Amino acid sequence: MSDVEEAIKSMKYDDQGLLTAVIVDAATKEVLMVAFMNAEALRETIRTGRTHFWSRSRQKLWIKGEESGHVQLVKAVYTDCDQDCVLVEVEQRGGACHEGYRSCFFRRLTDAGDWQVVAKRLFDPKQVYKDTKR
Amino acid sequence: MSDVEEAIKSMKYDDQGLLTAVIVDAATKEVLMVAFMNAEALRETIRTGRTHFWSRSRQKLWIKGEESGHVQLVKAVYTDCDQDCVLVEVEQRGGACHEGYRSCFFRRLTDAGDWQVVAKRLFDPKQVYKDTKR
Repeated sequence: MSDVEEAIKSMKYDDQGLLTAVIVDAATKEVLMVAFMNAEALRETIRTGRTHFWSRSRQKLWIKGEESGHVQLVKAVYTDCDQDCVLVEVEQRGGACHEGYRSCFFRRLTDAGDWQVVAKRLFDPKQVYKDTKR
Repeated sequence: MSDVEEAIKSMKYDDQGLLTAVIVDAATKEVLMVAFMNAEALRETIRTGRTHFWSRSRQKLWIKGEESGHVQLVKAVYTDCDQDCVLVEVEQRGGACHEGYRSCFFRRLTDAGDWQVVAKRLFDPKQVYKDTKR
């Protein structure tokens, strides 16, 4: 067993076999998205240098950018203290959000209690995605 | 019902009533920790300006820094596109990690497959915590 495989095994997966994965821009540190990885997704993320995730709704592995071309090139992988979460620094091609924004966190809570859009749309999702979400 | 209450209700809680919460340093954008919030934790975070979380292991609300004094002063709250995750920008007093580091993500995966500590310890956990984790 390679040491990378030991590192993957050392993580504490939840009862669905998942870790929370926080994806950040390697240059600006901006949080781009949050998704889930199982052991296979983490393994493929490390092996290929492209982020892979587990879709709970579709029950399958997916590669970020597989349809849009908006892939994430892996620059570094970190674990948290409890080893139930990974942070992945990436170079983001295009936008991370399937709604057309660079980051999924494009809405900020105002004092009045509105979720206000505070980012600019980079692309039109209808032009980029056919019928799947990402 | 206040609009803030509507914003809290608009979030998509999982089958345990939880959201993933990513806490970042408002100044540097560094990810400090990841934890869970239920609706009450989100409400108290917004109302008091101090981060509150739900502990799955202890099944109770907790305030970050309640024992250590290492509180997080809330500067902004964001939601992701799916509204199942919040990002909270904070001013961190002391260190976010119960192991004594500023961020919980103090270990990076090396090419050889080791989780290598890449940050300096700020404090000795034994001096700060009595018997609970945070």
